[in-house]
Amino acid sequence: MENFTFYAPTYFVFGKDTETEAGTYVKRFGGTKVLLHYGGGSVIRTGLLQRVRDSLAAAGIDSVELGGVRPNPRSGLVYEGIALCKEEGIDFILAVGGGSVIDSAKAIAAGGAYDGDFWDFYTGKVVEKALPVGTVLTISAAGSEGSPDSVITKEEGMFKRGATGEALRPWFSILNPALTQTLPAYQTACGVTDILAHLYERYLTNTKDVEVTDRMIEALMLAMIQAGPKAVRDSTDYESRANIMWAGMMAHNNSCGVGRTQDWTSHDIEHELSALYDCAHGAGLAVTMPAVFTYNMQHDVMRFAQIAVRVWGCEMNFAHPEETAKAGIEALRSFLISIGMPKNLLELGGAEADIEKMAHSACCGNGRDGSIGGFVKLTQKDVENIYRLMV
Amino acid sequence: MENFTFYAPTYFVFGKDTETEAGTYVKRFGGTKVLLHYGGGSVIRTGLLQRVRDSLAAAGIDSVELGGVRPNPRSGLVYEGIALCKEEGIDFILAVGGGSVIDSAKAIAAGGAYDGDFWDFYTGKVVEKALPVGTVLTISAAGSEGSPDSVITKEEGMFKRGATGEALRPWFSILNPALTQTLPAYQTACGVTDILAHLYERYLTNTKDVEVTDRMIEALMLAMIQAGPKAVRDSTDYESRANIMWAGMMAHNNSCGVGRTQDWTSHDIEHELSALYDCAHGAGLAVTMPAVFTYNMQHDVMRFAQIAVRVWGCEMNFAHPEETAKAGIEALRSFLISIGMPKNLLELGGAEADIEKMAHSACCGNGRDGSIGGFVKLTQKDVENIYRLMV
Repeated sequence: MENFTFYAPTYFVFGKDTETEAGTYVKRFGGTKVLLHYGGGSVIRTGLLQRVRDSLAAAGIDSVELGGVRPNPRSGLVYEGIALCKEEGIDFILAVGGGSVIDSAKAIAAGGAYDGDFWDFYTGKVVEKALPVGTVLTISAAGSEGSPDSVITKEEGMFKRGATGEALRPWFSILNPALTQTLPAYQTACGVTDILAHLYERYLTNTKDVEVTDRMIEALMLAMIQAGPKAVRDSTDYESRANIMWAGMMAHNNSCGVGRTQDWTSHDIEHELSALYDCAHGAGLAVTMPAVFTYNMQHDVMRFAQIAVRVWGCEMNFAHPEETAKAGIEALRSFLISIGMPKNLLELGGAEADIEKMAHSACCGNGRDGSIGGFVKLTQKDVENIYRLMV
Repeated sequence: MENFTFYAPTYFVFGKDTETEAGTYVKRFGGTKVLLHYGGGSVIRTGLLQRVRDSLAAAGIDSVELGGVRPNPRSGLVYEGIALCKEEGIDFILAVGGGSVIDSAKAIAAGGAYDGDFWDFYTGKVVEKALPVGTVLTISAAGSEGSPDSVITKEEGMFKRGATGEALRPWFSILNPALTQTLPAYQTACGVTDILAHLYERYLTNTKDVEVTDRMIEALMLAMIQAGPKAVRDSTDYESRANIMWAGMMAHNNSCGVGRTQDWTSHDIEHELSALYDCAHGAGLAVTMPAVFTYNMQHDVMRFAQIAVRVWGCEMNFAHPEETAKAGIEALRSFLISIGMPKNLLELGGAEADIEKMAHSACCGNGRDGSIGGFVKLTQKDVENIYRLMV
């Protein structure tokens, strides 16, 4: 195991009706003037936004609102939010929504405490200072409610890139599984896929002797494989929603990723898809993961065989472990299709003609050095080949 | 899943040579005058205490020392520590040792910020304020390095009791697996047993639909079953030590125990053994757990069958699930014996003649109401029967 530090000081408030405590927690963590940040549609329609407003008012918290965050959140609204924070003297940002809203809030938080261009943090600069962020989560997927990460798309060039820094961990996150019961099956499935991807990206490591984190990752995957299809079939199933919500947070707060190299190839390759086609990140990952894993399998057949046996219930083929490894990838593919995810680039709304451009952007765009990959180092040519496996 | 809050803001610094950063972290978390708290023997002999002293000095931190913590730490030294903190104006407590030293440090921290008798916290009062505590861990076992708990034995009456409160979570914990390489095999095995007990006590729940935490608990158990015997056989095996150290923290920071009722019967019953016979807590648990589980098995046969199949690799007997449940308890017993743990009260240094007294103390001593148990409610008579199963 490699040396590491781990610090995850987010205060989680989990369960039914907990969104009514938002104001109490903002106050507890020192907020006096809040930027209330959200998307649109559903948080208004379901009355959630109003409940949060009421809770802030009851706690005597002053607030300014900025709605309109869209999936695959854009830099334009972030710049607007940063300006608003500076003008209004905002001292706390409350995100009400899913990963897109939270990531947008984190970007505003970083920019609000910085004199330069916030995009610096999305080209490699670590976030060391940010306004405090709290969240009321409405989609189990991104894990942003407990992570130090944020992903934003810059409109000039359509680069979808990530920033990180301990200052980006939310100070508190309110997780009410009931808030996710209004999600359509497709979005639920996208969330399940994103959570599985966060687990795979940590599982695919070159570090030896990491049994404890291997087992934790497998555990969270098994829980998702059990609860995911139930929530997709019956959106009102509170218990499945609750299991998914805690698994989604644990999958990405990095307690199961410490002390080991990680991968993030599937994310990097997918980001080009959602930047270009504006598809859901989870749907993009569903198409990307089997292709990446098939391409990389020979790098460590036994690791793919291990996950096949332990997570997907495949029989170990001791004479031909690569058959087991392949069976595990096929089991993942079948699972994703069974919950309604697309199976190829076409179903995602993509086109073969864009492959070269996407491979170039993934490997060379926005200052990248020509290759990606933590598990296997991949050149632009490799990435092109992977996109071709998705056709 | 039940509603819950979860807040675990300890900063973990994990890996080789990390103890040399102790001073840096005390300073980072605002300490200026430290109570350096430790046991004796090994931390001095191995040079660890001196390295920590040097690190404090290098960071310009003033310190006062209080050594002499013993296993099953006592109230006497806690009172001494509290007085010292108040006289010397201590603003940070640094524990260098295992669970006993950390628990003693936490008791001093609670008492140092309180005007009454610190024992109030060990009879039910929640700790809401305490001096900040940091730790340099030398034994993987108690999980106190990441938990809000402390267990102390009061000399008058020999009551061994626990306190809890978020204020008791260490501000930072330095986890260097190499520091545990000097432990004798017996103490290593005691630690492994304690960690397994923390997992079992959470596993035995009456809450339904808790697949995600079930799976996480099983994962940590599987990792312990793999790494434990390796560390017992070869004390220098760094990688096994590292896996055990992270598992030991995760087993008790409660991320795998949230949203579900827990048990803690084995701990309550064991505390009487280590209070009376001064045996190692882990050794006491090795004798206690199989007896408690055998006694409680009929309460939820399928839960015991589930752990038997998923963790202990037992074949499911679909016609007679209780056979599988029993096989799982026997597998635990065999595992504990295989790593050198005692198998009955006699081997532990106990005597049948003390059973009534211990059952009375467990159920009625120090203000208890006549019964214990979160999974099955047990009367004094039940507890007597359980002790008799250990003979």
